[in-house]
Amino acid sequence: MIYSRRVHFYETDAQGVVHHSNYFRYFEEARDKFFRERGYPYSKLREAGYEVVLLEARCSFKKPLLFDELFNIHIKLSELNRYKFSFEYEVFVEEELKAVAYTAHCVIKEGKIVSIPRDLLHELQGA
Amino acid sequence: MIYSRRVHFYETDAQGVVHHSNYFRYFEEARDKFFRERGYPYSKLREAGYEVVLLEARCSFKKPLLFDELFNIHIKLSELNRYKFSFEYEVFVEEELKAVAYTAHCVIKEGKIVSIPRDLLHELQGA
Amino acid sequence: MIYSRRVHFYETDAQGVVHHSNYFRYFEEARDKFFRERGYPYSKLREAGYEVVLLEARCSFKKPLLFDELFNIHIKLSELNRYKFSFEYEVFVEEELKAVAYTAHCVIKEGKIVSIPRDLLHELQGA
Amino acid sequence: MIYSRRVHFYETDAQGVVHHSNYFRYFEEARDKFFRERGYPYSKLREAGYEVVLLEARCSFKKPLLFDELFNIHIKLSELNRYKFSFEYEVFVEEELKAVAYTAHCVIKEGKIVSIPRDLLHELQGA
Repeated sequence: MIYSRRVHFYETDAQGVVHHSNYFRYFEEARDKFFRERGYPYSKLREAGYEVVLLEARCSFKKPLLFDELFNIHIKLSELNRYKFSFEYEVFVEEELKAVAYTAHCVIKEGKIVSIPRDLLHELQGA
Repeated sequence: MIYSRRVHFYETDAQGVVHHSNYFRYFEEARDKFFRERGYPYSKLREAGYEVVLLEARCSFKKPLLFDELFNIHIKLSELNRYKFSFEYEVFVEEELKAVAYTAHCVIKEGKIVSIPRDLLHELQGA
Repeated sequence: MIYSRRVHFYETDAQGVVHHSNYFRYFEEARDKFFRERGYPYSKLREAGYEVVLLEARCSFKKPLLFDELFNIHIKLSELNRYKFSFEYEVFVEEELKAVAYTAHCVIKEGKIVSIPRDLLHELQGA
Repeated sequence: MIYSRRVHFYETDAQGVVHHSNYFRYFEEARDKFFRERGYPYSKLREAGYEVVLLEARCSFKKPLLFDELFNIHIKLSELNRYKFSFEYEVFVEEELKAVAYTAHCVIKEGKIVSIPRDLLHELQGA
């Protein structure tokens, strides 16, 4: 799946490029689209009492992203079991690779790690 | 009361200055110190079931703030009644006035506006 | 003009609503669309050596914005002369008014306030 | 070296904990203190025409950080050669480990990777 948008001005820093912390916010936006397209927007999971928690995040920054650039994030599910799922990300502007990243997640309910809701698990298994 | 700290790099934007949205975060930090020094850190109000809500915010930006600059925010209570309180702010770097601002607030509990908790009101009346 | 998008999760705070500082980022996004639609994306102004600077910002917060809500910002030019322009904003979710705001701006070049570039001024006069 | 401060309210999200993207901002603050204490505040490096660029970032999130918690970041230099340096971080609240992280950096001048300025390199070799 591809998530695309332009860089906002407030996401840049005094180096004139996107501040690295904002990439992790872009990845969250990409995940949000990923789940929404499969019928499980995160807002619905939350209404059902679940929270998705980040266990790990990694990013390699290859080239800077500039204000107003249109970036494309290629996101794919890279790992899935009953308790954990992971995503891989590649950030492009046109053909140029800007960053490569990985995040791992689990699901909690009432503060405890629970198995991924069955319906969502089936949906992800088909992804 | 004066709240001071340096500008973080991630608070700047591609103009090389602090992004205007961050001033409102600085004011929140200043309010936090204001309440803490009076014995009512916001975290305690929240434990008692209260939330402080922003009704209005205004800021005039006179001069830019730069990375690593040490700024001083002069904060004072400017209005107080049973349901509402307001603050005025002046942001300085040394003698230079950088911004002037105002915020107004009320207190809610279980989603409804309530009168300011009596103890806090008394404390603020002495401020 | 109307600027629309959903609230991102990272824009919420522990009150479960959008943190007030982020509204000012939304207004920047709305201005960006406003200028882009008139043929003057901010990135082009910057390439020509201009910076748009914020002089003043005000916002009245009526009702909270929640995660994943689709909001619409009605933005209109409210003041325009050779050196200054202002915008008014209304933030809606469906029919409900969430916030009303105002920002005033000038243009600088090489660190000094300059008159608004003639072409942009003409374009804005038609807005 | 240890960098300490409290969590700001605007750093939390609707899960009631610090949003993961903000940890990377905390690490930047910790690095800033690290360099300042060695006589090379980042603002001085920038005045000399250098920029420190992030190559890679990783973080394992063990336990959430809450609003107003006083956290301590233990930061240490973990790798150093003429072109690259890395840091490791451990985030604690009292005795509890909240997160473990790593960042790698290089230095650029006029858009190109350059060797670390000799004085800074010597200073870091002593760290």
